[in-house]
Parts: sequence; structure tokens; C-alpha cells
Amino acid sequence: MATNGDLNRKLRMALVGGGSGSFIGRVHATAAVLDNRAALVAGALSSNPERAKASAPDYDIPEARAYGSVAEMLEKENALPEDQRIDFVSVATPNFTHFEIAKAAVEAGFNVICDKPMTFDLAQAEELLKVVEGSSAVFAVSHNYTGYPLVRQARAMVQNGDLGEINAIRVQYIQGWLRSKLEDSDQKQAAWRTDPKKSGAAGCFGDIATHAYNLGRYITGLLPEEISCHLRTFVPGRALDDYGTAIIKFENGALGTVTASQISHGRENDVMVEIDGTKASLLWRQENPNEMIVRANGEPHKIYTRDPNAPYMTELGAAACRLPSGHPEAFFEAFANVYRSSYDAMAARALGQSFEKKDTIYPNVYDGVEGMYFVQQCVASSQENGVWLPLKHAAARR
Amino acid sequence: MATNGDLNRKLRMALVGGGSGSFIGRVHATAAVLDNRAALVAGALSSNPERAKASAPDYDIPEARAYGSVAEMLEKENALPEDQRIDFVSVATPNFTHFEIAKAAVEAGFNVICDKPMTFDLAQAEELLKVVEGSSAVFAVSHNYTGYPLVRQARAMVQNGDLGEINAIRVQYIQGWLRSKLEDSDQKQAAWRTDPKKSGAAGCFGDIATHAYNLGRYITGLLPEEISCHLRTFVPGRALDDYGTAIIKFENGALGTVTASQISHGRENDVMVEIDGTKASLLWRQENPNEMIVRANGEPHKIYTRDPNAPYMTELGAAACRLPSGHPEAFFEAFANVYRSSYDAMAARALGQSFEKKDTIYPNVYDGVEGMYFVQQCVASSQENGVWLPLKHAAARR
Amino acid sequence: MATNGDLNRKLRMALVGGGSGSFIGRVHATAAVLDNRAALVAGALSSNPERAKASAPDYDIPEARAYGSVAEMLEKENALPEDQRIDFVSVATPNFTHFEIAKAAVEAGFNVICDKPMTFDLAQAEELLKVVEGSSAVFAVSHNYTGYPLVRQARAMVQNGDLGEINAIRVQYIQGWLRSKLEDSDQKQAAWRTDPKKSGAAGCFGDIATHAYNLGRYITGLLPEEISCHLRTFVPGRALDDYGTAIIKFENGALGTVTASQISHGRENDVMVEIDGTKASLLWRQENPNEMIVRANGEPHKIYTRDPNAPYMTELGAAACRLPSGHPEAFFEAFANVYRSSYDAMAARALGQSFEKKDTIYPNVYDGVEGMYFVQQCVASSQENGVWLPLKHAAARR
Amino acid sequence: MATNGDLNRKLRMALVGGGSGSFIGRVHATAAVLDNRAALVAGALSSNPERAKASAPDYDIPEARAYGSVAEMLEKENALPEDQRIDFVSVATPNFTHFEIAKAAVEAGFNVICDKPMTFDLAQAEELLKVVEGSSAVFAVSHNYTGYPLVRQARAMVQNGDLGEINAIRVQYIQGWLRSKLEDSDQKQAAWRTDPKKSGAAGCFGDIATHAYNLGRYITGLLPEEISCHLRTFVPGRALDDYGTAIIKFENGALGTVTASQISHGRENDVMVEIDGTKASLLWRQENPNEMIVRANGEPHKIYTRDPNAPYMTELGAAACRLPSGHPEAFFEAFANVYRSSYDAMAARALGQSFEKKDTIYPNVYDGVEGMYFVQQCVASSQENGVWLPLKHAAARR
Repeated sequence: MATNGDLNRKLRMALVGGGSGSFIGRVHATAAVLDNRAALVAGALSSNPERAKASAPDYDIPEARAYGSVAEMLEKENALPEDQRIDFVSVATPNFTHFEIAKAAVEAGFNVICDKPMTFDLAQAEELLKVVEGSSAVFAVSHNYTGYPLVRQARAMVQNGDLGEINAIRVQYIQGWLRSKLEDSDQKQAAWRTDPKKSGAAGCFGDIATHAYNLGRYITGLLPEEISCHLRTFVPGRALDDYGTAIIKFENGALGTVTASQISHGRENDVMVEIDGTKASLLWRQENPNEMIVRANGEPHKIYTRDPNAPYMTELGAAACRLPSGHPEAFFEAFANVYRSSYDAMAARALGQSFEKKDTIYPNVYDGVEGMYFVQQCVASSQENGVWLPLKHAAARR
Repeated sequence: MATNGDLNRKLRMALVGGGSGSFIGRVHATAAVLDNRAALVAGALSSNPERAKASAPDYDIPEARAYGSVAEMLEKENALPEDQRIDFVSVATPNFTHFEIAKAAVEAGFNVICDKPMTFDLAQAEELLKVVEGSSAVFAVSHNYTGYPLVRQARAMVQNGDLGEINAIRVQYIQGWLRSKLEDSDQKQAAWRTDPKKSGAAGCFGDIATHAYNLGRYITGLLPEEISCHLRTFVPGRALDDYGTAIIKFENGALGTVTASQISHGRENDVMVEIDGTKASLLWRQENPNEMIVRANGEPHKIYTRDPNAPYMTELGAAACRLPSGHPEAFFEAFANVYRSSYDAMAARALGQSFEKKDTIYPNVYDGVEGMYFVQQCVASSQENGVWLPLKHAAARR
Repeated sequence: MATNGDLNRKLRMALVGGGSGSFIGRVHATAAVLDNRAALVAGALSSNPERAKASAPDYDIPEARAYGSVAEMLEKENALPEDQRIDFVSVATPNFTHFEIAKAAVEAGFNVICDKPMTFDLAQAEELLKVVEGSSAVFAVSHNYTGYPLVRQARAMVQNGDLGEINAIRVQYIQGWLRSKLEDSDQKQAAWRTDPKKSGAAGCFGDIATHAYNLGRYITGLLPEEISCHLRTFVPGRALDDYGTAIIKFENGALGTVTASQISHGRENDVMVEIDGTKASLLWRQENPNEMIVRANGEPHKIYTRDPNAPYMTELGAAACRLPSGHPEAFFEAFANVYRSSYDAMAARALGQSFEKKDTIYPNVYDGVEGMYFVQQCVASSQENGVWLPLKHAAARR
Repeated sequence: MATNGDLNRKLRMALVGGGSGSFIGRVHATAAVLDNRAALVAGALSSNPERAKASAPDYDIPEARAYGSVAEMLEKENALPEDQRIDFVSVATPNFTHFEIAKAAVEAGFNVICDKPMTFDLAQAEELLKVVEGSSAVFAVSHNYTGYPLVRQARAMVQNGDLGEINAIRVQYIQGWLRSKLEDSDQKQAAWRTDPKKSGAAGCFGDIATHAYNLGRYITGLLPEEISCHLRTFVPGRALDDYGTAIIKFENGALGTVTASQISHGRENDVMVEIDGTKASLLWRQENPNEMIVRANGEPHKIYTRDPNAPYMTELGAAACRLPSGHPEAFFEAFANVYRSSYDAMAARALGQSFEKKDTIYPNVYDGVEGMYFVQQCVASSQENGVWLPLKHAAARR
């Protein structure tokens, strides 16, 4: 099959962020090209123009398209002939800069893949939503854990009714790396994540609880009604929360819990989802992503492994696999699945075809808005000792 | 060493409850004699006098001491010569009967090992506490999960400061057996547990969340301040809660969560404790009780196995083991450890020696009171949409 | 139900061995009475008459029946009235003494439960077999791992054809406790196990590989044809093997491997069985005994948990459970299942009823013979660099 | 840092094989470019010239460099200017074609990354070794499991003496996908692997046991002396072995076992290594590749997670990581590590610098020879009922 189907060419990518010391920039660059459906051809790799240009060889970006700023990049790329011009911009910068970059990119006509949390606050997110809705751009948000094949399998199973009516959702995201006050040392990752001016109103809950919440929503599709949240800062002197737990009432009566920690010693990146339905329950854990446990009373516990050829796999789950079972897939591949799904839409756009914008396989601008609403309401509820606040945003997709 | 040390004889036990269809009566009878330190010599095995007597051969209780009622048993045993008379009474009946039986037994001069939750409500528990305090009786409550060697190891490690200051406690108790409305069929276990007249104000939270809460308290010793709780009944028509989650503020600022479920498909008896301290974190899970994971940033994850001979084991942990490592111990042995610890006190009492009554290794009447307070406040908080209520009871031990 | 059914009384047990420092004596004493179907009433607890008598209070054995020797015990017990006399003798002494004790006990008319390996060498085993066959005694060998409910479940599943034709059997038993030359210190358990005069021709292979081999045979019923074995002694100066691996050709063409180690650092008691059939494969591991994994191509992996109420449990598996699922059972209960199964036969014998002697649920004298043949052939094959030797003994049961 | 250091450009790759239906071709293509250090610019994607050219768009290979045959490719590439010409050829074709292609590529001056087993038989392997030794080519063999960070960590730990002297090595590779006679249906992967004309003298042992053997050798560096092997064909009518087990005597007295299966129901790709040393033991399992268990008597079991920042990680292990701990890496990344390590050598060669050819981090032509010797001796030993045969090849690296 030709690359990107009828489009018959690779998509052209620009990276914003990713200069030296960046973790997530390299992840985006790797994931984006994993399937050979895109090429990284341009970038504004740092907010510092000199560093931006100096980082280009790391990514094999030609000097001519190593821009000193996003504005320069958007202007010059738009001046290129259509068959050279970039198709999309990946935004891999600290939270507080997402809005401006993403908005400018969409307004310049490009598709965007934006890191999460999507913006600095809800107001920005809602404004960005309007901009995207007024455009024809494909807009994805890198809630990368939704890209794991078994997460998509879980989503398809819930949609198929395999779990019955959902009663309870328990999600968690447990880390330990911020157990000490790392932001006082020269650790860039820690520094901006614990700085309210760069990270936003929440620390732990903005950085990782949003992922966990999104995962529960992505898999079950249940609409939330209200949230009660308790944030804590356990490392003395830290400016933002590093631990918290929230309870969510869903529209259908289900009860949800979201727990996130950055201060649990030795815990690495333990994203976990447990879902209890009237017909079956399921459990998936990111650190062992090629397995999902499905249980029903009276039956053996069943371990669904990521197996593209197994009869039990749904179409959605199987399509997200690249390797046969037993050949583990992991973080990069899941991340790449968010890209891959959005490429289908980008190719359609480039071909002048219609494509779904709201009910997408990849997390989108609507999910981005909902994530910011989640962060805002968590912080507000926590400030009032866990008072119940609404959580159903008008833009939330079912 | 002679049996029960200087006492140099087995302790004599009477069982209340345990007639046909009982699960927990058999567990008490098995656990009590596992170490050959006690003999089951008498019983009032059912509230129905005829069934009580008919059940005696199951336990090899001689006809003469197979009583038709508790009152008869206490009276006749007290009439026996001291060297034949029972030493203690094990109460293995439904919740609503515990108070009367336990109180009578203590007042009759006997030691008591009482099932949990200790009474039907807090008022009974507080009254029973007074009775026990006014007596010289040994009074244990069968929060059996505290008897696992690695739970005691965890307690000792926290006391030793190995985990540092505790910031977070997450306990859960997840089951699935009440996923369907089993109480409508002829299932005795389900019937009384879901009947407010027999079980008390809470279902799931009285039956199992109390265990989970007790475990967190037992291991960390942290005193609670307030609780906010959300109970749910997911099986239509059920009279009591079958799911819930609670958040606890501890005196030292730590945050706790307690989650319990009886409606999670295929989940069996998943009691789990996670504790985050400033120096290390730990995780223990009842279904795999011979392992505990201790983690600290920068170090390999450490699996502490139940190994009485390992240098890393504390005295408290090692003393609770019966077998070398790799020879798994399980539910009965843990249950028997509650008995074994109380036997030391019973032997001391029989010898006229002093013994600790509040800060005991085994769960005691103070813990029983606290458990009932927990249940009461959970139900009350849940009825008010999770309002924060006090949780520190005056009787709670540190 | 009355104790031991129509027999309507407890069986009376004598323990040989078990004096201070013994591990396995206490295990026998605990397992034997776990179900309240037997009472320990007599003993010859040590080969040293004084120590034998001094150990009696540990077991609550009355002074009058604390004998100074096995001969004395057998004689005096036989002189007691039938309603006081012991029913059976448990032999929990070092290997080299089993034969004489067990033979004498059978000849004196008692049933025997004998530790494994059954005798010092094959000749003794074959002679003992004749003695047992010439008697009406119930004779069990404590291959205790066969008592695990899921091991019996596996056996029933193979017999039912759930696995299809068996092609491969992989069993292992990995320990690490003899990694250092423990026998040079004052460690009784290590001392006799590494002494050819007490342990027999093999060390590791006599002590633990026999268990692993027996387990494979017990579950599959496949008859062996030939064996090739390689033993090693990795701890310098040790007199017997502490590591080895054997390959077995089975009658039906299946290939078996048996690996055993006492020198694998940190490994505790890792008895594992893997079986490959044409319809399904299974895996069971003693250190996590409440789970068994059953796999078939194209299906989710299935974890069979020990659940007496689950539809997937066979009658044989369910009958070996004492607790509901999720309430773990372990080593003592498995050991007790060997006792419990033999009690049915003992009760039948006492009632003058017929009972199965060869195809028993519990490991018996035939298995004991086969175990000694296994040890003999392993040692002989290893001495000739792994030459193939016959392994099918005439007495082996299918 | 510039791409490939001082070379300051991407390496140019040609792929042989990988046409439609290929699994491993896509793996090579993905792994080779994962780090952005190489570009796939040419290919001879099938032995069928038309299909070769038709497959080029799948890989985004320009038409001009989509060759109809290897010979054509080598000739035309050599005719290109040096700054366009390929640097290396990846050979991803069935076994029987490796030799001719690899030899031609080396003789044409190119570096080679060749699939395993390296050739059809040992004679070819030895001849290829001579050709490589007579050239300046970098030659890697894709024993991809050596690329896992924790495998390299294990290698470094053994070299550092952390495990002490090695006594035992147990490796296995268990699969189930050939449980049925898949080669009779239209399954390309199964067809050539079970065809002696395409696969070579061994089936299961050539395809997967070679990986397991190589892994043990790679980690421990122990030199083998002799092997005894038993191969079986359990699926009726199959032309090659689908199961087997081998025992290896190592020079230092250690005992090794290699077990491989393609007929174990539901087993996926279970490559496992267990190593027993005098100071510690270790266990690693490919299906959960981000963990390795290290054990020592008296210490908690230690789970080493793949953590590039952990103090316990060796330089070799840490250098093989791309992501922080908890962000799982898997099959592609390990495969890419073989490429990455060989790129260092290729860049050195291109710069006219010297580079290591025998004691490389990546598996090389010496390992390829040894693998073929392993296959040859396994088959020969098995044909003689497991006779011991030499296994130390003169070319084997320590």
C-alpha cells in the first residue's frame, strides 16, 4: 500500500520544542516517524533562537528549516510551495506555551499534535477549541496512553457491551520521582512541572492525573457529573500539589476514583485502570502493557494479551498492533498510535475528503478542553475541602 | 517448651456459632488449635438448641458440653472445676448477636475472641469496652489479616522508622461474590450480610472495609482525624451498600483512602495496603501474602518474602512465621496468629501475671470500638454526600 | 457428619521423630490434626530415649505414651485395648531410618504415613512394598505437593482429556539454601541431607528432585521408559549432589525434564510443573499455589484459581479445598490433604471395609518404590555421563 | 551532537527481503531508523523482481533504487557517488539465502546486518567468516534479544563479578504457534521455517533455540565444551523438530540447559534466562523485559528495573535505554540497539578509524558461526540419542 494511502506521500512534520534536555521532544520525533508515514523536516526547537538552530542536527533537520521562532516557522513554511510545506506541527513545549503555539499553527492552516495538558488554563482551552472548530485542522492531544492496543481493546469491549453497565472506575497514576525537592537542583523536568507559572494551577494533577482521568473517560465513554478532590503537597516548600485523590460521580450513577502521586518511593509510572461492569471487570496497567485481565464470576481469570491475530481481539485493538504476540510493544508504539490515527485524518484533509473531528480514535481538542476543566475543578474543589463541583463540560464527547 | 509456657497445659476453648453452613466457625476452630496450645472442649454452636447439639460431633465436642444456649454454657462451665472449665469463648456468630454473647462471657469471667465487626453499633461497642475494662478478661477481635507475618513485619518497620514519616495510606478490599443478588437465593452468607437487622448500618463497609481500615491503622499507628465517605448499592434492590470509597485525614497530615467492593466481577478477596513514607514505600496484598514489596528511589524494588531466618525480618515478623521461606503460609496461619498472640495474655492471666491490654499485638476491644466508629461515621458521611465527620475516637490506640 | 464417617471417632496417631530441631515432625503433627479427624496420642520423638520423652510436652503427648523407642512404642501400643491403641504411625525421621520403622509398624498392624524418599535405597523400598502388600495396612508417602488442590485439579484435567495427549513435561525444584557449606556449621537439616550415610545415594535429587518427578507422574500418569541424568556438586567439599538435570523418555513418546537445585541464590522452594498437551498447556508453581495457568492457542490465558465453588473445578480439585477462593491455602493444608485422603482408607480398614491400595489419591508405597528407583537410576546414569537407563519399574502405577 | 558523531550524516541502508507478507523485514526497517541515525534508501525487497519493485513504496524507497535483485543492487549502488551510495545491507530473507547475499554484500564493500541463523549450515558460516575477516566490513547478526537493556546489564554484572563464579545456566524459548500443522495452510512464516530446504537442518532449534543459546553465551561469556541434545517432532508429518532440550558442559564446570518449544499451547515468545552464580542469581524474561530479578541468600529479592538513571545500572545497561524507568521499552528498541551498536563501528569505518571486530557489543559473525555450530551439533547429537559432542568452536569469542 502506498504511504498514507491515496495521498501517496509522507506527511511533513515540524517540531516545536525538543531542544537539548527535552525528554518529550525526542519521544514525539521518534513516535511520529515510526511507521514511515511522516518525515520531520522543520522545527523551532527552542524558545531561544540560537539553541533552536543548534539543536537541528540532532533531528537531522536541514539548516534552512531550523527556525528561530514559531512565528518565523509558520510564516516561512507557508511561503514554501505546497509540495514542500509542512503538514503538521507537534507542540512539545512546557504547558504555559501550548496555547499560543497551537493557536498560531491552526490559524496558519496547519494540523497540530499538542502535548497535554492542552493549555495553561480552561479559558485558553475553550478559546483554542473555538479556533479549531473554525478551521479545518486536525488537532490531536497526546494523551499517549490511549494508544496502547489493549486500552483501545478495552474501549471497544466496553462499547460492545462486553462489560455490561459500568458501575465503578478506579484509575491511578503513581510515581515517585518528585519525592525529594528535585526542583531545587538543576533538573529541568522537575523545575517547570512544579512552577505554577509554567505548569498551571496543578502540579501532579495537571501532569499525570489528567492522563489517568482521560484514560477512564476514553475507555468507558461515561460522562462525569461532579467531582470532589483533595490535593496535597507533601514535599515541604513545593509550590504545587504532588499527591491527590478525587471522587467522581458519573451520569449513569457510576462512582469513579482518581488517585495520583509523584511522591511514592520507587514507583515509576504506574498508570492503572480498573473498571467494574455488571457483566465483567477489567484491569490494565501501563508498566505491563501487553496484558489486560478480564474477570467474571465463576470463570477463570482471563489474561488478554496483545495479540493481533487472536479471535478475542476487537478490530480497534488489533489495528493498533505492529508485532505478533509475545514480542512486546511499549511506550513508543503507543505514542505512535496517537500519531498514526491522526495521520488518517490529515491525509483525508490533504485530499479534500471529510473526516471525523469529535468522535476520533485519537484524543482531540475536545478531550483537551475536558482535561483543563478537570484540572480547574480539582484545584477549586480541593481549595474548598473537597466540595462537590460540576465536571460535565459542554464540549465533552460521549 | 511446655505448652503455654509456665501454664503448662492447653487452653480450653468454647465455640459459639459454627453450626452447619457456617464458614467462619470452622475457621475459628481450625485456627485456635493449629499450634496445639488450645483444645476445643465446649460449644453453643447454634442459636437453635437442637442444631447446636447436633453440630457437636462435627467438632468432636463431647455431648455433655454441647450446650443449647450461651447462657447455659456460661453457667454450666462456671460450675465445673477450675481445671476443666473453659478459658475462653470464641464468638463466630452474625454481627447482631456479638454484643450480648461477648458481654455475657466477659461478665462470666471468660476471655473472649470475637468476630468483627465487634458489635451491631457503636453504642454497644462502647458499652462492651466498659465491661471489658472493668474485668480482667483478655479480649481479642478477629481482624485476622493483622496476623499475617508480613503485615506484622510492616508494622514493625513503620515503628522502626524504616519508612520515615507516613504521607499516604491506600487500602482496599475488593470482592465480587455479591455481584448478583445472592441474598434472594438460599445463600446464608449473603443473606445475613445484606440484612440491616443482622449486619448493622453498613454492608460492604461493615463486612470488609473495616478490615482494610483496621489494617492501615494497625500497620501505621497513625491516628485519624476526619472521614468523608461515599457508599453505593449497585445491585438493584439490595438493602445495604455493596461498594464505597472513603477519604481520611490523619492527625499528622497524611491522606488515606479506603475502597471496598463486593461487586467487582471475578475479584476474590483482594485486601491490599499501600503506604508511602518519606524514606520508602510498601505494598502488601493478601492474595499473595508471602511477599511484600518495599521500594525506595534509586534502589531496586525489594521483595521481602516471609522468611523467619532472613536478616531483614524484624522480631515481630519472624515470630509470626511457622515455616521456612518458600513454604507458603496463608489464611489459617494468619488467623491462628491472632489466637496465638492472645494466648500469651490468657496464660499470663491464668497465672495471675499482668499483661498488656491496650497496645497488644492482636486486635482488641479498643480496635473493635474504633471499627464500629468507622462504620458509623462512614454511613453518616455518605448520607450527607460525603460531609467530613470526626473519626478520632477517644478509645483509639496510637 | 460424624468424625471419619461411620467410624465416628478420631483416628489415633503416633509420631516418630519430631524432637527438638525437627522441622518436618511439627509439620506432620500440624497437618495430621488440621481437620479434627485425628489426635496425636503417642510418640517416639527421638532416637535418643531421653530426648524422646523430653519432647513429648511440646506435642501435648501424655507421659505414659511418650516412648523411648519405636520398638517399645509398637509393643506397648499393641498391648493397649483396641479403643485406645493408635491407628497409624507417622514417620518423620531422616531417610536412612524410614525402612526399619515403617516395616516394623506395618508388621505390628498399624497404618503408616512415611516421609519421602521412602527408604534409603531401592532394595529396601522393594522389600517394604512386599511387606505392605502382605498386610492390610494403609501406607502413604508424604509427597505433600500432590495435596495442593490445583495439583489435584491438574491431575483430574489430564485424566479428563482437557489437555489432550501429553507431549512434554517440565518440572523443576529450585532452592538456594545449600549455596554455602551449611553442613560445616551446626545446621541439623543440612547435616543429614548432605551425608550419604543418612540421606542415601543422592542429595539434591533424593531430597527434592523426587518431589518434582513425582508431581509430574502424579498429574499426568504417563509411564516413564528411560532416564538420562547429570548431577553436579557445586559447593566444594560437599559429599552429595546439589544440582542436576535429567531427561526422561515416556512410554507415549513424551519428553520430560527434571531440574533441581539447592544452590540457586535466593531461590526458596520453587517447585514448578509445566505440561504441554495437544489441546492445552498448564503451569503450576508451589510458591503461588492458589493459581494455575491454562493456555490454549487463540484464547486468553486462563488463571484457574483455587475456588471450590467454581464451575471449572473438578470434583477432585474442589474436594481438596477448605476455604473459599481468595482466602489463600498453602503448605499445611496441602500436607493435610495427603493425610485426609489416607484417613478415608484408614477408616474403611478400621470398619473392615475394602479400600483402594494402588490407585489412591494419596501417594503410596508404589510411588515410594518408584521414587527410590528414580534416585537410583539418576545416580547411576550420572556416573556414566548421562547414559540412558530404564526407568519403568514393575510396581509403577499408571 | 551531530548524527553519527564526526561522520555527521545518516548512514544509508539497503534492505534485502521484506516484501509483502514479511514480518522481519518491517522490523529491520523500523529498528534501523529508530534513532534517526540511518535512512532506508535502497532495497531488493523480494527474490521476485516484480514484487521487489512493487514493494518499494511501502518503505518509501524511491523507484530508482528499488532493485530487482541483490546483484543489481550491489552493482548499481557501487556505481553511485560515494556520498549517495549505501553504507550497509540488512539481510531479512529466509535462512537458506543469507550466505550468498551476505557474502556478496561484504565482497562488494558494504557492511552487513544479517538475520539469524546466519547461514544454512556451518560450512557456509565458516566460509562467510573468512570473507568477513578478509574485509573491513562491519558484520552484525540480529540476535536481537541481546539488545535489551537488562540483558546488557546482566552481561556487565557477570563481567563485573557481581554474580561470582557461574555454576548453572538455564535458558528457554517457549512458543506455541506451531502447535498445529500451520505449514499445510497458507502461512508463509510457518512454511519456510518447517522446510529443511529453506530453514536448514533444524526447525525449532535453528529458529529459536539459537537465540536462547546465544543469550546465555552473551551474558556469561562462558565457553562451552560439549553438548547433548534431544530433538522431537510432536506435530505429525512435520519435517523438522518442533521441540527439544539440550544439556551443555561449560569449560569452567558449569552446567547449562537449553529448552525450546514451538508446540506449547498459548505460549507466545517466552525467552527466559536464569543464571546461578556463587554470589547471586539472576532471572530475565523477554515478555516482561523491563525487569530482571537478582537474588542472594538472606537478602530481599531485588527487581532491577530498566532505569537509565539508577545507581545500580551499569554503563552498558544504561546506554541501551531511551526512556526513563516506568515508560516501558520493548522489542523494537532492543532490535534497534543491535543496529545502534553496529552504527558506531560503521561510522568509524567510514571515517577510516579502527574499531573492534570480535569483542563487540552487538552479535557478530563469530557468534553467527557459533550459532551454526550449535545447530549442527544439536542435530547430530540428537540423531545419536543424545551422544555428547564437542561444542567449542575455534572462532567462539570468550
